[in-house]
Amino acid sequence: MNAPDLIRQKRDGLSLSKAEILSFIAGFTRGEIPDYQASALLMAICLRGMDVRETADLTDAMLQSGRTLDLSSLPGAKVDKHSTGGVGDKTSLVVAPVAAAAGLCVPMISGRALGHTGGTLDKLEAIPGFNPRLSLSEFRRVLETCGFAFGAATEEIAPADQKLYALRDVTATVESIPLITASIMSKKLAEGIDGLVLDVKAGAGAFMPTLEDARALAASLVATGEAHGKRVHALITDMSQPLGKAAGNALEVIEAVETLKGRGPCDLTELCRELAAHMLVVGRVTDSLDEARARFDSVIRSGEALGRFARVVAEQGGNPRVLEDYALLPQAQHQDSIRASETGFIAALNARMIGTASMLLGAGRERSDAQIDPAVGVVFEKKVGDAVHAGDRVCTLHFNDHSRLQFARDLIRDAVAISPASVTPPLLITECLIPCS
Amino acid sequence: MNAPDLIRQKRDGLSLSKAEILSFIAGFTRGEIPDYQASALLMAICLRGMDVRETADLTDAMLQSGRTLDLSSLPGAKVDKHSTGGVGDKTSLVVAPVAAAAGLCVPMISGRALGHTGGTLDKLEAIPGFNPRLSLSEFRRVLETCGFAFGAATEEIAPADQKLYALRDVTATVESIPLITASIMSKKLAEGIDGLVLDVKAGAGAFMPTLEDARALAASLVATGEAHGKRVHALITDMSQPLGKAAGNALEVIEAVETLKGRGPCDLTELCRELAAHMLVVGRVTDSLDEARARFDSVIRSGEALGRFARVVAEQGGNPRVLEDYALLPQAQHQDSIRASETGFIAALNARMIGTASMLLGAGRERSDAQIDPAVGVVFEKKVGDAVHAGDRVCTLHFNDHSRLQFARDLIRDAVAISPASVTPPLLITECLIPCS
Repeated sequence: MNAPDLIRQKRDGLSLSKAEILSFIAGFTRGEIPDYQASALLMAICLRGMDVRETADLTDAMLQSGRTLDLSSLPGAKVDKHSTGGVGDKTSLVVAPVAAAAGLCVPMISGRALGHTGGTLDKLEAIPGFNPRLSLSEFRRVLETCGFAFGAATEEIAPADQKLYALRDVTATVESIPLITASIMSKKLAEGIDGLVLDVKAGAGAFMPTLEDARALAASLVATGEAHGKRVHALITDMSQPLGKAAGNALEVIEAVETLKGRGPCDLTELCRELAAHMLVVGRVTDSLDEARARFDSVIRSGEALGRFARVVAEQGGNPRVLEDYALLPQAQHQDSIRASETGFIAALNARMIGTASMLLGAGRERSDAQIDPAVGVVFEKKVGDAVHAGDRVCTLHFNDHSRLQFARDLIRDAVAISPASVTPPLLITECLIPCS
Repeated sequence: MNAPDLIRQKRDGLSLSKAEILSFIAGFTRGEIPDYQASALLMAICLRGMDVRETADLTDAMLQSGRTLDLSSLPGAKVDKHSTGGVGDKTSLVVAPVAAAAGLCVPMISGRALGHTGGTLDKLEAIPGFNPRLSLSEFRRVLETCGFAFGAATEEIAPADQKLYALRDVTATVESIPLITASIMSKKLAEGIDGLVLDVKAGAGAFMPTLEDARALAASLVATGEAHGKRVHALITDMSQPLGKAAGNALEVIEAVETLKGRGPCDLTELCRELAAHMLVVGRVTDSLDEARARFDSVIRSGEALGRFARVVAEQGGNPRVLEDYALLPQAQHQDSIRASETGFIAALNARMIGTASMLLGAGRERSDAQIDPAVGVVFEKKVGDAVHAGDRVCTLHFNDHSRLQFARDLIRDAVAISPASVTPPLLITECLIPCS
């Protein structure tokens, strides 16, 4: 393979063959193809795109760059859920124990907070003692014992993706549907899954702000899954405002546990129910979405889901007593309220600005090497569509460091819009993409 | 400046400001911006383009990365000629002494052969002792003494271009009109010129094979020159077949000297006359192209142009006696003929294939670090449109190394097409682009 010829082909809008993609990715992973050629190809892919076959081949090349879990000896269909990232999205903490309680095997390998978006691993690490950095054999053992486990990506899984992602981040080549698809799917397929449910976020706080882009990404993810013989469903869901009421790691753990106890906010509970239901259908526990939704309610009501979560927390070194005593979780020293400046209806709670405010308070990372404060964040008392009176509390900021409070306050003030006329809340689940096969 | 933001802007088809371009190029030249970010931006420029203002700013940024000659104290308008490269193009060796003899100051800094195209410096170095690697002060002295000088690009002139070109070469980002424009114009403007005549080649042997691309490049070059307050004319000329009859370094020196003696091939003489005439008009020696053409013929006839050439050869360490005794030039040990396979008319002499054949014989470079054999090359006895009988000699190969002869022969056989019907030779000068200002 001649790297400049291959780059030229993509630059000129031609397709790359499976062998070409494989050899480029293998060469890049081994360090034989320099970064400057990879970044030129990445930019050409950004601007020229890749068709379904090329995207599947790229995914495969990245998958083959590392190890793949073989979970075939474990009981139950192996099904995972993946979200493209948002603010206040703690669904993984709910749907994994629910799906496991309902009979699936859920090998959930998650990521960390970056920019305005949160990360499942950071949320879990708010639980004192919790360790998501399991070896593959520990991960397998927890999975076998509890039906699910929370793991962190290691260098053994899709190393090409780690190397490519670092390069994309500094060369403005992140926003490309085939590249995003291959990055997500290579890591998910490495988990040895039979099926996958994707939560593709759309709206201000999402990676893909427009519905059109979210739809294109969902279609690309589903097609790539199908090309690898997996059952994949995708939901397109709203991320114009934060999901649930809490953003911030310990605060979100509390909200997730409340949801496992059947007392979660409506929107969060609804989305968890839908995601879990699709997981059960993808994993052939049932063919009926309605029956699957009923299973969600049943394992929540019976406490089975909460019990599973407690077991995994304990297995992974965390203190399961936090589920009953939230005071055992890290707590911020200070609180501050933001109140409605006028009477009317909440018209917007811009998720990106709120996520950024939460990051500034210490809940997230501006750079991937930054430290997280698990205690801080924002808790909303109102959501879009709610009526407010001037002076009502809209949200509470939980913080430890006064120095960045003002920035966060200003951002949240700008994120909140109040309208004199009544406002219809956004539809939570916009579209559902289920392949015909 | 944030490099990823700037790359993103161009990726999304937005314009870059002068300050952004300047800071990116300066950062890249100093090594602060890594190659992988530069190559991503180069690919984005390839696919998104740059407008006239951005191209002029990029040129300026590259120009400012190094030194600029100040020739204002020398007499005469400073005018250079630049060709986009071709096969058998030895016009520089003719037009520089002609223009100098007619009153211009011609600071000609040239390049080397690469791929199927020849380079002026390699041609001049076929003259025993000739040294084009002058320091800026030596270059200035020869210029002052003779009215023209032949120099080689140094690291002092537009170092950003050297660094960028090396990167473009390995990342499939060579073929981009704004990048080509900035590369050419930054080096030419660094010569401290008042005006420039561009010979933009079109056809099989040209960098821009189609007339449309050549036209777009010519327009971009002229606009960038104007943006820098220079008088620039561009001719679009034919490079479907080699220019003149000889391709190969010493062989081309002979043909150039013959042209300076008034005995050159018709096409070469015509193109040299037109280029020199435009140089004289650009340099305001006269406003009339016809008068300028007459000046060309006059300094050839009087021997003044040849005399100037002899002086520069001597000044730059070469043996001026070669102009009278071609046997002092390197001569190949072997010759081989290619003969017409049928009777008819020469329909094509594919310049790219002939250039490649000549390179294979040793006259050019496959890679920029390859050695040149000054003696070898091809001399044509027929050109497109000429009648031939089966068995007539079409060309003679001059070679030293038998091992690559067969490849070269095969290529030239493929390059020659003979038609039973008569053929009209291609128009040598297709278009002329003179700004209205």
